[in-house]
Parts: sequence; C-alpha cells; structure tokens
Amino acid sequence: MMINITEAAEYFLENDCFLLLCHASPDGDTVGSASALARVLASMGKKVQIKCGDRFTKDFDILLKGIPEQDFEPEHIVAIDVADSKLLGTEFYALYGDKIELCIDHHASNTLYAENICLEPDSASAAEVVYLIIEEMKAEITPEVATCLFTGVSTDTGCFRFVNTTVRTFEIAAKLAEKGAETFKVVQIFFETKTKTYAALERLALNDMRFYFSDRCALICITRDMFEKTGSNETETTSLANLTRMVEGVLVGVLMKEQKDGSFKISVRTNGDVDASEICSRLGGGGHPGAAACTLSMPRQKAINCVLKEVEAELDSVRIDSAD
Amino acid sequence: MMINITEAAEYFLENDCFLLLCHASPDGDTVGSASALARVLASMGKKVQIKCGDRFTKDFDILLKGIPEQDFEPEHIVAIDVADSKLLGTEFYALYGDKIELCIDHHASNTLYAENICLEPDSASAAEVVYLIIEEMKAEITPEVATCLFTGVSTDTGCFRFVNTTVRTFEIAAKLAEKGAETFKVVQIFFETKTKTYAALERLALNDMRFYFSDRCALICITRDMFEKTGSNETETTSLANLTRMVEGVLVGVLMKEQKDGSFKISVRTNGDVDASEICSRLGGGGHPGAAACTLSMPRQKAINCVLKEVEAELDSVRIDSAD
Repeated sequence: MMINITEAAEYFLENDCFLLLCHASPDGDTVGSASALARVLASMGKKVQIKCGDRFTKDFDILLKGIPEQDFEPEHIVAIDVADSKLLGTEFYALYGDKIELCIDHHASNTLYAENICLEPDSASAAEVVYLIIEEMKAEITPEVATCLFTGVSTDTGCFRFVNTTVRTFEIAAKLAEKGAETFKVVQIFFETKTKTYAALERLALNDMRFYFSDRCALICITRDMFEKTGSNETETTSLANLTRMVEGVLVGVLMKEQKDGSFKISVRTNGDVDASEICSRLGGGGHPGAAACTLSMPRQKAINCVLKEVEAELDSVRIDSAD
Repeated sequence: MMINITEAAEYFLENDCFLLLCHASPDGDTVGSASALARVLASMGKKVQIKCGDRFTKDFDILLKGIPEQDFEPEHIVAIDVADSKLLGTEFYALYGDKIELCIDHHASNTLYAENICLEPDSASAAEVVYLIIEEMKAEITPEVATCLFTGVSTDTGCFRFVNTTVRTFEIAAKLAEKGAETFKVVQIFFETKTKTYAALERLALNDMRFYFSDRCALICITRDMFEKTGSNETETTSLANLTRMVEGVLVGVLMKEQKDGSFKISVRTNGDVDASEICSRLGGGGHPGAAACTLSMPRQKAINCVLKEVEAELDSVRIDSAD
C-alpha cells in the first residue's frame, strides 16, 4: 500500500523496536537517511537498530557515531532508499526480503516489494523524504540529525550538480545548514577526498582515454590488470564514467570495465541530444537518455569496436536530425 | 563611504547611464553579478554597459546574451566583485581606477578605493550582495537574471563546496531556482566541462604527482614544457592545486608552476591543522591557514627541495603539537 508523509510519520510515532535497513554497497543517502531517522527515534526513547548487508566503511563514521547500540528483537522492519529488495544484498534479501513493513524511497523504479511504501519520486534523495517525515513528526532536528540528512541530500545530487536538484533540495539544504549540519565536513569526506587506490586508478584511466569521431567520443577501458596494479576495484569506478563526458566537445563518454569473467561492463554518458539508451539498447542493455549501460562478453578490442560502431551510428543520426 | 544594501538600491533607482566593470581574468561571480544587475537596470529603461579589461570567453555567453548593447557616455561607474582597483587590469585601472563611484563587493580585503562601497564580507559571492540589492529595488527577477545570479552564487562557492557556503547561500540558491534559473546548464558549463588543453595538462600533472613524508605531502610541478605540450596555460591551473590535497592521507598539497622567467609560483593547500601560510611565509610568501602561495626564483630541483624542507618542518611541528 502506498502511504503518504503524514501516515509514515504516524507509523513511527505509534510503533517501537525498529530495524532500519540500508541497501548493500551503502552510500551517503541510504546511511544518512537511516541514521537521521535512528537518531530521532532514539531521542524519543524508542528502540532502533541500523543494519546493512555490507560493512559500513569509515567514511560513514560521521553519520553513525554516537547512535546508541541496542540489543532487542525488532518488531518493525523498514527499508530506506532500497528500490528493490534484492538491493539489500544476498544475505539480507534472504533474511528480510519478504518482511519489509515499510519502504521509504525516492526511486521511481521501486519494485513495490514492501507492505507499505512511502515513495516520493520527485525527491532527489531519500533524505529529502526522511526530512519531510521528521518535520511531520514534529521531532527536533539536532545538529547531528541535520548532518546525516545533509549527507543524503548532497551525495545523491552530486553536491547539487545533478539534474535532480530542485528548489526543495536547496530549501532543505538551507534548513539543515541552519540547524547546524556540518556541511563543510560532509563535503570534505564525500566529495573532496580520493582514496589512494582510486587516485592511482584515475591516473591510469586518464592515460588510457582515447578519442574517436573527431573527438566527439571519449573512451576509457579499465582492465583487470589496472585494478590489480592500483589495488582499486569496481566500487571505485562510479565517477570515472563522468571523466570522459567532461572533456569539452565530447558528446559520448564510454567507460568499459573488464569483469572477472573477462566480459566488459560498459557505461555510456552523453551530452546534448545524443541518446545513451539508444546506444546501449542496441547492445542488449538500457538506461536513460543521458546515462545507460550494457555488458559485452567478447575480447577487449572486439568489444571496443562493437561499442564504437553504435556510438558512430547514434552520432550520425543526431547529425542528420540536426540538419533537418 | 560605506553604504548599505538599501542605499545601494536607492543609488541604482535614482541614477541612469551606468558603466558596470568586472575584474580582469573574469569569473562567474563578477560577470554573473554584473549581467544580472545590467538586465534589471535595462528592464527599468535605464542605460547600462558592461565592460571588462579582459575578453569575455564563450563560457559567459549564457550570462551576456540578450543584454542590449547601448552606446552612450556613462555617468556612473560601478565596479562589481573588484577587491582592488588594480584588479581591473592595467588598461582599465588607468582609465577608471580613480573614477569608481560605487564598488559592490564581498571581499574582506577590499582596498576601499571607491567613492562608495557596498561591502558584505559575510557573503560567499558578490552575486549574493547583488541579489539583496535587486530585492531591495523590488525589481523583477526574471529567469535570465536568476541564471546570472545563480552563476555567481555557485561559482564562488565551488558549487556549494567551499567553507564560505552559508545558510543564506542555500536560501538564495533556492529562490533563484524557483525564479527559473537554469541551474543545471550553469553547472554543466562552469563545473562539468574541461577544455581539451586543461584535460591534457591535468593528465600530465597527475602523472607527475609525487608523494613525500610517508605520503603526507603530494607535489606536482608543472613545467613550461608541459604548458607547451598541451597548449594549456597559467589560467587553467587553478583547480590543479586542489588535486594534490584531495588524495586520502595528504596533509599538504603543493603545486609548482614554472613561469616564463624560469621562476616557480608555488601554491600550498593543507588539510587539518597544518598551516599553509606558515610554510609560505618562511619562503617569502603568505596566505591563509588552508591556502597560501609564494614564488621561488631558482632551478626546479632546488625549488622542490626548498619547499619540501619547510613542509617537513611544518609537518613536524604539528606532530609535536598533537603529542602535547
């Protein structure tokens, strides 16, 4: 059943003994939103736990420190920022996948797996939804709660850079800053720090970047060898996809990542009218006009050629459209 | 004479025939603020011109397009975001340096060269000050004006990442987004696009990055040869200084840039308690605790050794302090 912000607020006010679940490969939004809510519920004397199928790295210390660890049998299981129960991770999916009483989310793609769903697809982050629920609960937003919510709001918008950033995003950021959120510290941790392994991988990636079709396409191919040389891994490659698209004049940015089985995961990012999902769907994948993905199981050079062929076709079709 | 926001608003309402001056090496704040004000004044039927000692690059088209070009003899000369009349550039300093009737600024370091000064040092950008003046004038904030102001607000805060970002910054960003500012387009132009020459220089810079003192110091040295190889130049090096500091564990980031005369301009960025101005002042320069600079006229390796010696001394002093 879909429930609104008021009903979600009532649910938290009326119940006790919550287990809040984050998605696997946790990010600033799932952990920031869950930890904000946990702090508010704990301050009301309620029992609450936060769990995640994957380990919380030390980046998240700023969000989790000081939340009292409580040992009790949870009665109400809530998933936060989890669009699909499979995203809880294998172990937690098996444990909790069919036991989620409430899901708080902002993904339009939510698979509606939970008993109750509080879904705000116009929100840039789950933290915006949790902010509205906390306001509706008339709970106090302490500086710590504000820091947790600001982390969600800023990380899911690329620090106010993504197209999902709205008037309300800025309004909530203003209110959280006013409540004492450590905005600068959050930005330093989540946006201004690169791990050494990522910095090394980025360097190799930039050295590998090649240009095609009069420099309208930039392509980076990350091999297993690069992961091994740098000690980096798949989880650190998210922002590499954008590096290609950022170069002036580039309309299509391609990031290829060699998988352990030798196949290549391919992320396509586009500028202007070039449709990334067109390129990827012709290769068996899919996505959005500005960002799409597919997987190719073939040798490196063959995979590159395959992608470039579709990139060229898409670039040509845009050129023809523009000439109309 | 220092004047407040209300007095500045009255000044614009009561007068006509304005020349608005930007600082040389124009950035998003000086051009965004001046073009917002020019649009508002023109919409009131007033005569207004915008000028800059340096050429406006095409990045600024989004701010300047559609502002009517008017030919008239200016009666009131206003400098915007110009902390020192010398920053008008050599030619404009000679032409207008002693003729500035009003300066609108946010730099605490303003040299008070103008007849009247509307200075708000707590503002992260001149655009915040201009926003307040436009509000006080009860003028309409059109989508175009909002885009100009948003450019100033976002560029001078590194897109809401710098420590100067305040509650009011976010509040104004929300209001500008509400008024129809093209926030995403601004971000794409000013934050998500690298020129090809910069991208090439960045690649060489990252390849050159070396680590010292158990990786607590990262150093990049840009030689004339690198500028020549990439076609890049000094104006594109601003963000390179931050690349060093962003690597996890780095407390001191050093960027050295070889000048045409063979000397080295040195930018130091620090994290935590390490004082960049301490390092640079011992080398004849100065600055702030987190960011400082100096110039060394000596061969490359000698300059590197000189800087590293002071970096080590500063790292040692912090270690001793912490051990107290």
